[in-house]
Amino acid sequence: MKRIKVGIINVTGYTGMELARLLCRHPKVKLASVTGRSAIGNKLCQIFPHLSDIDLIVQPELEDVALAFSAMPHKASAEGVLEALERGIKVVDLSADFRLKEAAEYQLWYQASHPAPQLLAEAVYGLTELNRSQIASARLVANPGCYPTGAILALAPAVEGGIIAPDIIIDSKSGVSGAGRTLTLNTHFSEANENVSAYALDGHRHLPEIVQELQKLTPETLSITFLPHLVPMTRGILTSCYAQLLRGETSKEEVKQLYQEFYRDEPFVKVVDFPPGTKQTWGNNLCLIYATIDSRTGRLIVISCLDNLVKGGAGQAIQNMNLMLGFPETAGLEMPAVYP
Amino acid sequence: MKRIKVGIINVTGYTGMELARLLCRHPKVKLASVTGRSAIGNKLCQIFPHLSDIDLIVQPELEDVALAFSAMPHKASAEGVLEALERGIKVVDLSADFRLKEAAEYQLWYQASHPAPQLLAEAVYGLTELNRSQIASARLVANPGCYPTGAILALAPAVEGGIIAPDIIIDSKSGVSGAGRTLTLNTHFSEANENVSAYALDGHRHLPEIVQELQKLTPETLSITFLPHLVPMTRGILTSCYAQLLRGETSKEEVKQLYQEFYRDEPFVKVVDFPPGTKQTWGNNLCLIYATIDSRTGRLIVISCLDNLVKGGAGQAIQNMNLMLGFPETAGLEMPAVYP
Amino acid sequence: MKRIKVGIINVTGYTGMELARLLCRHPKVKLASVTGRSAIGNKLCQIFPHLSDIDLIVQPELEDVALAFSAMPHKASAEGVLEALERGIKVVDLSADFRLKEAAEYQLWYQASHPAPQLLAEAVYGLTELNRSQIASARLVANPGCYPTGAILALAPAVEGGIIAPDIIIDSKSGVSGAGRTLTLNTHFSEANENVSAYALDGHRHLPEIVQELQKLTPETLSITFLPHLVPMTRGILTSCYAQLLRGETSKEEVKQLYQEFYRDEPFVKVVDFPPGTKQTWGNNLCLIYATIDSRTGRLIVISCLDNLVKGGAGQAIQNMNLMLGFPETAGLEMPAVYP
Amino acid sequence: MKRIKVGIINVTGYTGMELARLLCRHPKVKLASVTGRSAIGNKLCQIFPHLSDIDLIVQPELEDVALAFSAMPHKASAEGVLEALERGIKVVDLSADFRLKEAAEYQLWYQASHPAPQLLAEAVYGLTELNRSQIASARLVANPGCYPTGAILALAPAVEGGIIAPDIIIDSKSGVSGAGRTLTLNTHFSEANENVSAYALDGHRHLPEIVQELQKLTPETLSITFLPHLVPMTRGILTSCYAQLLRGETSKEEVKQLYQEFYRDEPFVKVVDFPPGTKQTWGNNLCLIYATIDSRTGRLIVISCLDNLVKGGAGQAIQNMNLMLGFPETAGLEMPAVYP
Repeated sequence: MKRIKVGIINVTGYTGMELARLLCRHPKVKLASVTGRSAIGNKLCQIFPHLSDIDLIVQPELEDVALAFSAMPHKASAEGVLEALERGIKVVDLSADFRLKEAAEYQLWYQASHPAPQLLAEAVYGLTELNRSQIASARLVANPGCYPTGAILALAPAVEGGIIAPDIIIDSKSGVSGAGRTLTLNTHFSEANENVSAYALDGHRHLPEIVQELQKLTPETLSITFLPHLVPMTRGILTSCYAQLLRGETSKEEVKQLYQEFYRDEPFVKVVDFPPGTKQTWGNNLCLIYATIDSRTGRLIVISCLDNLVKGGAGQAIQNMNLMLGFPETAGLEMPAVYP
Repeated sequence: MKRIKVGIINVTGYTGMELARLLCRHPKVKLASVTGRSAIGNKLCQIFPHLSDIDLIVQPELEDVALAFSAMPHKASAEGVLEALERGIKVVDLSADFRLKEAAEYQLWYQASHPAPQLLAEAVYGLTELNRSQIASARLVANPGCYPTGAILALAPAVEGGIIAPDIIIDSKSGVSGAGRTLTLNTHFSEANENVSAYALDGHRHLPEIVQELQKLTPETLSITFLPHLVPMTRGILTSCYAQLLRGETSKEEVKQLYQEFYRDEPFVKVVDFPPGTKQTWGNNLCLIYATIDSRTGRLIVISCLDNLVKGGAGQAIQNMNLMLGFPETAGLEMPAVYP
Repeated sequence: MKRIKVGIINVTGYTGMELARLLCRHPKVKLASVTGRSAIGNKLCQIFPHLSDIDLIVQPELEDVALAFSAMPHKASAEGVLEALERGIKVVDLSADFRLKEAAEYQLWYQASHPAPQLLAEAVYGLTELNRSQIASARLVANPGCYPTGAILALAPAVEGGIIAPDIIIDSKSGVSGAGRTLTLNTHFSEANENVSAYALDGHRHLPEIVQELQKLTPETLSITFLPHLVPMTRGILTSCYAQLLRGETSKEEVKQLYQEFYRDEPFVKVVDFPPGTKQTWGNNLCLIYATIDSRTGRLIVISCLDNLVKGGAGQAIQNMNLMLGFPETAGLEMPAVYP
Repeated sequence: MKRIKVGIINVTGYTGMELARLLCRHPKVKLASVTGRSAIGNKLCQIFPHLSDIDLIVQPELEDVALAFSAMPHKASAEGVLEALERGIKVVDLSADFRLKEAAEYQLWYQASHPAPQLLAEAVYGLTELNRSQIASARLVANPGCYPTGAILALAPAVEGGIIAPDIIIDSKSGVSGAGRTLTLNTHFSEANENVSAYALDGHRHLPEIVQELQKLTPETLSITFLPHLVPMTRGILTSCYAQLLRGETSKEEVKQLYQEFYRDEPFVKVVDFPPGTKQTWGNNLCLIYATIDSRTGRLIVISCLDNLVKGGAGQAIQNMNLMLGFPETAGLEMPAVYP
């Protein structure tokens, strides 16, 4: 079978790099074109020596491909997306540009007027497990943020199932690669190593995504606090969620069954029997979920974990691509985690 | 001035070791006797090469000292404490044995009948900032757990101030040294490195301490969920606390003032202007606290951080000793953190 | 095509686990049987949750397979190997039992008389790049140690090429997983983190392998010092080799060409243009080599790096299996490194 | 006793910061003035929150002090040093500007003509243990680089003792803080974590210092290869040195005695009985040395370790200051390491 051509807009960050790593072993597609803003004219392996098997040169413009991934920063991404769509290229956008349905919300959180508001209605939020059928027929998929992927998957069964009160606390712990390849003092090794801190206490840009998507699952108005933390590791997000159970007598077993039922046929979400560690998802596309009850207080506790660059980024983007191009959803994503 | 003799019961774990490190530079006391269950007859520096300046041999029995620190595991500790008190030696007990006021609670959480219930009423809970005057006159001080120190200090102003509803979420992230020097698969480097996980989801033994001490500050019945997490670093605990503000219109500034007022004269608690990282307390006795509001939901968020082996252990024990022996509270504890 | 059955003797350590991870995605073989000394009767995923796709139960005895990997400790391994060979099963032995050609050397380094000296002559040292044709026809392959793989590959071109004096220094830096899954104080997270140390200064058991294999390449008597170091990371070995060039005027370019020529057609050894980092091989089967000259002193410096659990262990074992079973050498091993 | 005023030129890097940490607890001096190139007008604790006990504002110009530490980058430092000396201020220069005795060597390694060659003869190389008496009477001390401190201390007894051939290999492993606070891709957390690499293979700027100082100890012409490596930890340098023993029959015990004799009365160099780890010097001013023999090859192996920011930087600078101002050499430097 001839493999279908795909491309990456802005391959030079960690997201673009991880897309290239995963796509180069994909059985159905051929990575045919990669662009960059810097590094144009360089071989991909000059920037990322571990990708020495990929013989591609970073170009200023995307070649003709069936589908493109945009790994541009927000705002710049929308412009590239618009152009690609006009050329008839399907797009999975890994930036934040098409995640929020309201241009006003975008303005509020990203301090910029939306570059292509006409596409907001059409774009599908690419949390595969919740929006599978729409993704399959979409021209433009907005790939979720890394935090929202873990948080929404952890809470969706409980919110949709109507078992919790609308007051929800989401406490996330992320590895440093989530902050990208751009140099900052916070991500300088000597500062980040042996250090844990909370950040974005006035509101993280991933909050409105989480609210928007969970709110779709319930008529109740949710009141969500989301607090991200930086922990000294490279990959992984562990998210701990807390909410009051509506019926105090719900048992741990009932909660577990609700979650298992919800994700019964999902290839990339596993409801597990023991609290998981992020390392169990290192390098693969799984989201592991553990749901239990704090029986002293009648609260639901849900833990989720995933690799922020895979299920929280490039992996989920390929999962979405698989649906958009009619491939098996798991194609190219079946590797186990690398442990320890 | 002649320095007063003190001793350490069971010096061979991390807590005992850290006591020795701090005591050997203390201006008012002389570390005169250290005991162990293993390693008897060895020089201290054979077990801990970094303590080569301390010329002491691990002995089976405590010599005559004015005050002893017990760094035994729970249950065994109570026995040593009892014996020391009978010899007229004051004790700071770093085990859990005298923290809980009710023997039944102890039985419930530690699956053992209490070895010395007759001392429970007398023992003072050694969170220095809350119980300073009682500690000063105590014969037996129960040094708090590492998690409770950070959690109670973070919440005390809000609970006592009556500004929050009684439903409280405490999400803590701890370095691995909190699990001690005993070998386990969870603390094996290859398993713990590049990994974050939650544990003790059915209830951690530090929960009843937190409830007991915070409950003293309010007539309302508190409903507290506490969830600890292991993060890949050696030292440090960061605790994130969440609770609904009773009056939605409370401002960030008011919260900050409440906290600053509460800890105004405290040498070892600092209310800071920016979210702190654990590394800012590496090796010293500070607890840093940042209190703010999630204005979208009207929730209080409080972050605290400390070094689990110092303010969360040996440092606070020495702070308590200073009070018990009539020294300045800060004696021997004034070093800045080692950063980065 | 029907996949050929293979098995793992003692799957419960890191080497066995890594074999399982790699074999479960191999296109030509089916992992059909895994044994253990502990954990018998458990599903593999109960021990290693990241291997949840493998539906196998740990058994006391190996089933009938075409080839078995032995991941037993030395001495015990030889017994299992003997038994497997008698059943007509080819074996790749990942222990040290069949690496040294002289039973006396084995006795000297492993303080045990060799359990099956009759097999020493037949066993082939499984450094694929040097012994490819013998491996292809072997019944028993002794998979090299992790350090020897990196050290021998780094030095073979220079030793065989006759460009260096026989005095060689090998300074290796290894991640902690090289020490295995057994708990020790040295591999306790709080001890190993933020720490570098040298060990085995009186002689590491991997030294005689290195000497034996390099000595085959030259008539000169080599004098090799090998010193391993533990560094705070999970995977990876970086080896730095030093030796005096025989002809001072050898240029960097000539050295590079010698190395490139030597490894011209090797799929898993890359001679690179810049000093590599271990992370560039994280999770894959490559050995990266950088050879240069210290022009001030006329010394050769060669750096090699690899993942100790893959090219230094399970990956090379599968590379050898591929040859032994007539598959393409790269089958199941073509994944890029997971970076960062 | 009135404390003597000292200052720090360019406090805003890790070296300046560490000087401030150590000086603020020094019993004999008062840190009275700190300057910066950036951050002028800020309180020191705004830049470094862990130094909140120091109430100083970063100024553009140094106030009148008895002694100043220059923590400027090379070249800029010489200018500040010149100015300070002209004002009658003694200087410990932590840059490289006055370490090399030959202006031509400086030109060669730093690609700049020396800004103050007239001071080269006067400046004393501040490796305290080797140049104690000259330092005590010096007006200008050139504080050694972090690598040279560990390498020279490791080799001085053997070189001066004449027990080794002149061919020496020095293989150093450094934590990332040695690269300073300036942001680079190599020191970005996600790149440096779980990674080991060699660098400066064409010659590191610390090599000429090492050669210059060791060459003073022997009439033989030394031939030294020095290769630094970056390891994923914040602090610490472990240096492994290799050289051929001249008399093959030298025993381990003789080597140990030579080393113990050489450093008999040194407060900050300890010859230890077991191979040390860098963590044993975390935050303190010790250099630990272990000397042994590879009896198979008749080679000397010496391991040294230290904290690159303390004995390899700020600590040694204060040790030198103590001598220059007539204080006990150990004043302000007597803390044990913080372990684990």
